[in-house]
Amino acid sequence: MKKLVLAYSGGLDTSYCAHYLTHREGFEVHAVTVNTGGFSPAELEAIGTRALELGAHSYKALDAEQSFYDKVVRYLIFGNVLRNNTYPLSVSAERIVQALEIVTYARALGASHIAHGSTGAGNDQVRFDLIFQIMAPDIEIITPIRDRKLSREAEIAYLREAGIPYAWEKAKYSINKGLWGTSVGGEETLGSRKPLPEQAYPSPLLRETPQTVALGFTRGELTALNGQEGSPVTLIRQLEEMASAYAIGRDIHVGDTVIGIKGRVGFQAAAPLVIIKAHHLLEKHTLSKWQQFQKEQLSSFYGMLLHEGQYLDEVMRNIESFLEDSQRRVTGTVFVSLHPYRFALEGIESPFDLMDSGFGSYGEMNTGWTAAEAKGFIKILSNPGKIARQIHQSHD
Amino acid sequence: MKKLVLAYSGGLDTSYCAHYLTHREGFEVHAVTVNTGGFSPAELEAIGTRALELGAHSYKALDAEQSFYDKVVRYLIFGNVLRNNTYPLSVSAERIVQALEIVTYARALGASHIAHGSTGAGNDQVRFDLIFQIMAPDIEIITPIRDRKLSREAEIAYLREAGIPYAWEKAKYSINKGLWGTSVGGEETLGSRKPLPEQAYPSPLLRETPQTVALGFTRGELTALNGQEGSPVTLIRQLEEMASAYAIGRDIHVGDTVIGIKGRVGFQAAAPLVIIKAHHLLEKHTLSKWQQFQKEQLSSFYGMLLHEGQYLDEVMRNIESFLEDSQRRVTGTVFVSLHPYRFALEGIESPFDLMDSGFGSYGEMNTGWTAAEAKGFIKILSNPGKIARQIHQSHD
Amino acid sequence: MKKLVLAYSGGLDTSYCAHYLTHREGFEVHAVTVNTGGFSPAELEAIGTRALELGAHSYKALDAEQSFYDKVVRYLIFGNVLRNNTYPLSVSAERIVQALEIVTYARALGASHIAHGSTGAGNDQVRFDLIFQIMAPDIEIITPIRDRKLSREAEIAYLREAGIPYAWEKAKYSINKGLWGTSVGGEETLGSRKPLPEQAYPSPLLRETPQTVALGFTRGELTALNGQEGSPVTLIRQLEEMASAYAIGRDIHVGDTVIGIKGRVGFQAAAPLVIIKAHHLLEKHTLSKWQQFQKEQLSSFYGMLLHEGQYLDEVMRNIESFLEDSQRRVTGTVFVSLHPYRFALEGIESPFDLMDSGFGSYGEMNTGWTAAEAKGFIKILSNPGKIARQIHQSHD
Amino acid sequence: MKKLVLAYSGGLDTSYCAHYLTHREGFEVHAVTVNTGGFSPAELEAIGTRALELGAHSYKALDAEQSFYDKVVRYLIFGNVLRNNTYPLSVSAERIVQALEIVTYARALGASHIAHGSTGAGNDQVRFDLIFQIMAPDIEIITPIRDRKLSREAEIAYLREAGIPYAWEKAKYSINKGLWGTSVGGEETLGSRKPLPEQAYPSPLLRETPQTVALGFTRGELTALNGQEGSPVTLIRQLEEMASAYAIGRDIHVGDTVIGIKGRVGFQAAAPLVIIKAHHLLEKHTLSKWQQFQKEQLSSFYGMLLHEGQYLDEVMRNIESFLEDSQRRVTGTVFVSLHPYRFALEGIESPFDLMDSGFGSYGEMNTGWTAAEAKGFIKILSNPGKIARQIHQSHD
Repeated sequence: MKKLVLAYSGGLDTSYCAHYLTHREGFEVHAVTVNTGGFSPAELEAIGTRALELGAHSYKALDAEQSFYDKVVRYLIFGNVLRNNTYPLSVSAERIVQALEIVTYARALGASHIAHGSTGAGNDQVRFDLIFQIMAPDIEIITPIRDRKLSREAEIAYLREAGIPYAWEKAKYSINKGLWGTSVGGEETLGSRKPLPEQAYPSPLLRETPQTVALGFTRGELTALNGQEGSPVTLIRQLEEMASAYAIGRDIHVGDTVIGIKGRVGFQAAAPLVIIKAHHLLEKHTLSKWQQFQKEQLSSFYGMLLHEGQYLDEVMRNIESFLEDSQRRVTGTVFVSLHPYRFALEGIESPFDLMDSGFGSYGEMNTGWTAAEAKGFIKILSNPGKIARQIHQSHD
Repeated sequence: MKKLVLAYSGGLDTSYCAHYLTHREGFEVHAVTVNTGGFSPAELEAIGTRALELGAHSYKALDAEQSFYDKVVRYLIFGNVLRNNTYPLSVSAERIVQALEIVTYARALGASHIAHGSTGAGNDQVRFDLIFQIMAPDIEIITPIRDRKLSREAEIAYLREAGIPYAWEKAKYSINKGLWGTSVGGEETLGSRKPLPEQAYPSPLLRETPQTVALGFTRGELTALNGQEGSPVTLIRQLEEMASAYAIGRDIHVGDTVIGIKGRVGFQAAAPLVIIKAHHLLEKHTLSKWQQFQKEQLSSFYGMLLHEGQYLDEVMRNIESFLEDSQRRVTGTVFVSLHPYRFALEGIESPFDLMDSGFGSYGEMNTGWTAAEAKGFIKILSNPGKIARQIHQSHD
Repeated sequence: MKKLVLAYSGGLDTSYCAHYLTHREGFEVHAVTVNTGGFSPAELEAIGTRALELGAHSYKALDAEQSFYDKVVRYLIFGNVLRNNTYPLSVSAERIVQALEIVTYARALGASHIAHGSTGAGNDQVRFDLIFQIMAPDIEIITPIRDRKLSREAEIAYLREAGIPYAWEKAKYSINKGLWGTSVGGEETLGSRKPLPEQAYPSPLLRETPQTVALGFTRGELTALNGQEGSPVTLIRQLEEMASAYAIGRDIHVGDTVIGIKGRVGFQAAAPLVIIKAHHLLEKHTLSKWQQFQKEQLSSFYGMLLHEGQYLDEVMRNIESFLEDSQRRVTGTVFVSLHPYRFALEGIESPFDLMDSGFGSYGEMNTGWTAAEAKGFIKILSNPGKIARQIHQSHD
Repeated sequence: MKKLVLAYSGGLDTSYCAHYLTHREGFEVHAVTVNTGGFSPAELEAIGTRALELGAHSYKALDAEQSFYDKVVRYLIFGNVLRNNTYPLSVSAERIVQALEIVTYARALGASHIAHGSTGAGNDQVRFDLIFQIMAPDIEIITPIRDRKLSREAEIAYLREAGIPYAWEKAKYSINKGLWGTSVGGEETLGSRKPLPEQAYPSPLLRETPQTVALGFTRGELTALNGQEGSPVTLIRQLEEMASAYAIGRDIHVGDTVIGIKGRVGFQAAAPLVIIKAHHLLEKHTLSKWQQFQKEQLSSFYGMLLHEGQYLDEVMRNIESFLEDSQRRVTGTVFVSLHPYRFALEGIESPFDLMDSGFGSYGEMNTGWTAAEAKGFIKILSNPGKIARQIHQSHD
């Protein structure tokens, strides 16, 4: 019997796959959920039960939250990566790690096939397939939803006929949750005009009284919250709980998909937004102008390639080396005030704060140089423009 | 008698200069205020009166708001320019246009000297001097505050002795206003830790009830507000009035000065922030991925050079050509909701909206291609990674 | 009868297509050769005769040399574009213009199909198909060689059986000629190790005595040769004749194809290499440092997208605007000496030569500034490093 | 007595300094020559003797060739750095290492002053001063030639008067030699029009018979020559001897100086040119498209900052991390044929050659994918253009 590993989320699409691939296609289906921070233990247990009920031969929940952080999230923080200046790549980045875990799992099981529930209209098919094709060109990829262009209704009808009793009400908003944010799709995001309504977002406004939180960074990583040290993953979860109570970090991403159409997706990502903006502020105090200039260019490119599933391109490792090296002095504390629907950066403290030099305060008093030196500086700085103007004028 | 043009704002520094240069240095001082949107007619009249009282031989208020928009602001909008991802270059951009106007005025008067009130510790000296040196290398630049490293107290003492009766109380916060925003400096911005307090910002929160405003863009320029057409300058002013009532657009910029130290400055720029974010969203719907990619890189560089006073470098004209050309289809309406201290982008309508193609909706249904085509796409896309892995594995 | 336009070169692949599509598939075949500079009138006549003999309903030779220059070559010169720092994009750039001409021709004829002879292993299929799909999504593309994976031998056998009497000896080296260079493929270019032998290159060494040639540029375009003015296209052809006699401009390009594999192709492009290097030198004398910096980045990207067939992406127009604007003062004469297998840039003369300023000679004597000013300049320039070191040292 | 370290080369300028600073300014002068590959032991001995004769209290020759390679040259190779696509930064890069060595030496001696012989018109003053100011802000910099704007004649007259008997004939061409090339200045390089004559170049043509040399690279570093392993520094010297016999690697660099004027300088750098071009070719075979894309941009920037003396900016370390990481598989052998005045890249062999995949040969046969897959690829690739055209057409 041919062994097949199925990326299983418990939803309609992959449930269809679980049943169909077992009962119609005759695979020995090994369902697997790669948890990058979006599932509770109880949820995973329910998903596993369902997989087995649908006919899967085995079920496995793989915990990849730490791996997700180590492989991807820390570099997104180092790079202050917001796709199109907005989106923390909440979902796209997870897919990479999920695909990598699934390949490893399939190899360990000796599977000859991998199946996933992606449609033919999105980015996820690219992210999954690219990694599978590169890491395991010998394993065949099966995608029933994409191949058969199945509608929701057809899937439900199939499962009902097969005697599967679940109710598959279509949630008005499709939610995709992970360590680095939650994506939200709905009728509104299919068009360009309308925002998502309040109720579409999974975390409602729970708290109105502002509070200030102190984010401690060590070499670019979040290592303390209000003075309490902890692992980055733990602290991200804690901050998410604090900040999402203010309904912070909601927005809509409009972007270019790998397949060339424009897409629109809502998201809520309180902790990612707060962390990235705080980290960025700390960098403004601790990095040189040119470090910031090059980081911005490389990070934007890194986000683009990650979004497009090109995680395995060697250039990504090279950029990670740059980013890692750039964080040597990104250490300090950033103070952020949380308010309903927004947050504000208050300021920072850092042993490496380059503003704190006793060297002359901006616009106030120059103690490190004389007026004559400043004038000499500007004089020389004007050389190229002065020469160009003189020469252009005499010939224009 | 040597003719001197003095950039005059009515403040302590330039008032000192007006008196000192006239009475101690024996210049025929022609005071001039270049208004880039920050002064009312009444204010300009009072400034003029003061200049003459201090001894200036003449006073002139030059209206450069439209010129400021044409030469600089429209490109900042085209480029979504926020320095360090935060600052709309509110003040730095104005200095350029002020310097250009002053040179033209000095030439027309046949002046042999230009004076300004900059200190030796800031960016403004560079912006002014660079333009003066390049455009008029034959005119001598005089900067008493920088050269004499004068303190506020010394200037007041000098003026009091000279019988000038004005009260020069030091405002707790120094405010610099123009069409493209208001900068705010104070004790807090001299350090890294503290935010500016509520009262430091010139426009208090006046309105709490949210409203939605429709920004109409034509080829990248703001041409309508809630359906009412108008010139960009007029509409920016109208929007500023509406949005600043919500205390929107406040933040603190931390950046690298041209003279190499880090500086921190608060600002309030409601209209600029709303316009740039709205314009950027419209571009996400109307430009190709690669247009956005290159615009981002060029615009960030453009903002850096503008900030550093390098407006006259020919590369700025080349980038402006790129930006202008990129705006051909950035036409449409963006809906923005205004709330206390924040705003949200609701959505857009545009005849050039590339999402509105009936071509397949992102993540839903692909009508423009088949599953096989999508798989072929990904297969070929995986070629480089597949080859690299095969070759690396066999030798690692 | 279904009208089909066939891109016809007279070679085996497209000859097979001409016959097969007419006699087996029942199309009314309209053969067309788009001449981008590689064919003589006699060659085109022979090609046309052959097309009709093979069964084509009509034959047309379109002269696109000027169009090729206007749409592509001038920007390659403005941008000093050498793919991977080596290849003037000799063939890839022509394909774009050929595809555009073919679409226009097919539209004019009311054709429902377009056919070309590309295989499934190269870049040309991408360049042709991309343009056809975008410009004429309603016209069906037919590619018999790609679809049927035909070998040379199979094609010859088919034609022999059909009574077509031509001798199809395989040339040891496949040659592809156009205005902007000639590509050369052979056994050696299928591997990585060996260079092409002398005889593989179409233009042998004919002249050994060095000579100096003066290239006159006006706003970046070649407008004179040794003082004789002429149209750029004419001058490129003249220069090619002069320079190829020295066997100049030979090299091998190693690059990444659009389909993700690496490819290697030889080329001979005497005039393109001489023009680009001469133009580049003129720019070093007439453009600012930042113009050169940004041109380099944009041009490299432009070359990449052009090579990959993405000519129609709007970003290409935006970059062309930048490049065009950058050429305003790229006017002057460049002196180049030609030697067997190589050339050397001697120097330039230009009214816009920024070296010719009487401002101080590099490394010799500074007349435009004092030692104190230079020291002030460096002092201020050292600020960021000085601050960083002071702060890092005290905490490392 | 105040201790002063003098960067001493044995030439007129620094000889003047040695005598003047000792006898007129009363310093205890410690002369030092930092050898980055340009001096033989005999030359250094003669220089030392002269320094002491002129009055120096001590003389020291520091061997910094290996340090120059480790700190700078290897990254110039990794980055294929040619400034303005021409110049291997032969001299500018050495200055950095010389300055660093001098600071260390001055610290060890407890010197309070550092002196060098730069004029006020060149880049070297910037390179030296920047490093001294940053690394040792407490040590005072003294530059008699710059400060006193001394002419050659005045220096000679001073020394003659002081009884120094040396003949100081002005060499027609000033030569500056180091491990990474030799710069050549002369009357011709002061203007834009003329090339340097044959005799200006220090290494004449000695050999006419072509030969092929095999350059072995390991992780981007030159580790073998014709199969003989050796240290990079040793091999660079060997290759220089071989290749300079062919008078290879001569050219003229035209570039922007840090002080804003254009400069022109000849150079001869046989080994650097051969190594960089060979290394680059190896990268084309072993790196991904995006690695090459980002390397090109970062390396060009790296070269610019190095040229301008900004070696200590932290971004340089970050870029070095990127470059180092990118070289993991840049291992293999490159075959280069040497001819009079030129060289040609023949081909490469590498275990990591990505062309050698058995995956399909470019333009020939596709074995890794089907025609349908290629067509699907192009179909999806055309999506953005197709959508844009459809939407633009309906509204233009």
